[in-house]
Amino acid sequence: MSVLVVGSVAYDSIESPAGKVDRTLGGSATYISFASRFFSNIVRLVGTVGNDFDDMDLQYFKDKGVDLEGFKKDEGGRTFFWKGRYHENMNFRDTLDTQLNVFEHFDPVIPDVYKGSRIVCLGNIAPELQLKVLDQVTQPQLTICDTMNFWITGAREALEETISRVDVLIINDEEARELSGETNLVTCAKKIRAKGPKYLIIKKGEHGANLYSDYDMFSAPAYPLSKIVDPTGAGDTFMGGFAGWLSWSDKINRENLRRAVIYGSVMASFCVEQFGAESFRKLNRYDVDARYEEFRKLSVIPTKS
Amino acid sequence: MSVLVVGSVAYDSIESPAGKVDRTLGGSATYISFASRFFSNIVRLVGTVGNDFDDMDLQYFKDKGVDLEGFKKDEGGRTFFWKGRYHENMNFRDTLDTQLNVFEHFDPVIPDVYKGSRIVCLGNIAPELQLKVLDQVTQPQLTICDTMNFWITGAREALEETISRVDVLIINDEEARELSGETNLVTCAKKIRAKGPKYLIIKKGEHGANLYSDYDMFSAPAYPLSKIVDPTGAGDTFMGGFAGWLSWSDKINRENLRRAVIYGSVMASFCVEQFGAESFRKLNRYDVDARYEEFRKLSVIPTKS
Repeated sequence: MSVLVVGSVAYDSIESPAGKVDRTLGGSATYISFASRFFSNIVRLVGTVGNDFDDMDLQYFKDKGVDLEGFKKDEGGRTFFWKGRYHENMNFRDTLDTQLNVFEHFDPVIPDVYKGSRIVCLGNIAPELQLKVLDQVTQPQLTICDTMNFWITGAREALEETISRVDVLIINDEEARELSGETNLVTCAKKIRAKGPKYLIIKKGEHGANLYSDYDMFSAPAYPLSKIVDPTGAGDTFMGGFAGWLSWSDKINRENLRRAVIYGSVMASFCVEQFGAESFRKLNRYDVDARYEEFRKLSVIPTKS
Repeated sequence: MSVLVVGSVAYDSIESPAGKVDRTLGGSATYISFASRFFSNIVRLVGTVGNDFDDMDLQYFKDKGVDLEGFKKDEGGRTFFWKGRYHENMNFRDTLDTQLNVFEHFDPVIPDVYKGSRIVCLGNIAPELQLKVLDQVTQPQLTICDTMNFWITGAREALEETISRVDVLIINDEEARELSGETNLVTCAKKIRAKGPKYLIIKKGEHGANLYSDYDMFSAPAYPLSKIVDPTGAGDTFMGGFAGWLSWSDKINRENLRRAVIYGSVMASFCVEQFGAESFRKLNRYDVDARYEEFRKLSVIPTKS
């Protein structure tokens, strides 16, 4: 199945206890498309960059085989830029600088050849833009949406409409609590799923992720990484791995959804081992499948005996 | 195998968003012995209560079949009393009152008939007292220890000695970070296990628990409870279920340790559904085994396909 990815393409300057990098390629659409392209043959990107966008980075997308028909270079400004510093406890970070630049006027126009895409990944952008994408696609089999606290508080109405129209919502536990007004995660999940999404994935950082649907409740462990270099893009990579693997498997059912959650987690676990999107350069299927198997063994509960 | 339980027996006054109770039977030894007695035929309690201890509560222990040879009623004072209030987010609570009473002079003298106990549960008491217990037992097959931040900061030296002498340390993630001085849980686990314990269990509240040993790393999910009445005693109950089930299974190996973690989690999940130790009154093996199976299904990762 084809995957459509809409989101930001950015340059990030990142400091973490493991080091620092300047203006490394980032943005939600970057991570989602690289991670989904790992599994899927057809990954289509809609995003915008500025006049400072490096040819080498453009080449990285081309080398990866990402379809760039919807990729626009806006010569009238610079690329979205984010600068942040992670704390010793990397669950926390400070944003030091945000320059929206050309992303401020991002208008996700879906090329005609993209409109029939079967899996639609709405990266973490304004809900109004996510709706605009949903209005343009013609036959999605699965629509997947990410969001953040900024939109939950600042664009609630549009976000509620987006949520009512997507199949899968992927958020973290803090966002789930804010969106539902509940503290208990099971109650959170019930309330959020009542808003529309057939599938809800609540990411819990170092504690794994939960998948809720009418016919399943799944608790996925986190991979026990002893060294995390840079958490940037982990959530986007999760979405990309999830979507990409479902695209490859070609069948959306209970077992494949569980597998997709684990493949998403696997991809995210590789992502955080290097700065930015560097991990995707050399990642191969053998390593990914081996880590999938490690995930599986980690959580086997023996039968009662 | 026989189980020896040493800890507090207390009266708790508890407020939670679900209601309140006054002077309900509590204390670490209470929860541990009830939970372990659910599985184990021989559970021996060492604890002390005061002149206000109710005959009905004593009868509760007798009805449960807990061996009370080491249970002392001190007529010279009152029973350990704790009063607390849980927040809307029940991961947080305020202690409103603590009266150590007769527990202040608790001296864990192990009766001769208890000294050969095979599984030793050291509830959350002063590390000096835990060491005193270890000095008295003669042939333990498994020693299990709980502790808390209060001892990590206030009795570090004695605690390090206790930890160096026990087989299993059970703590929560916050305590693991404080004890190791690390933030990454995998690194925490490595550092703590280097201090002595063959097995380390890190409880993560609503996110489940991890078991670390030389030959296994296990990630157990949390049971998705939608209604929690009172978290008091959940950790002690976990230890009791863990120890009790191992006692019943009679064999300490990789599979049984994983099962014991799940049975501990199952018992804890029942514990928090009612105030205090009320859940233990009517709990039966059918319900416990059914929930074990729910735990198992919750975390099955399908093979790669």
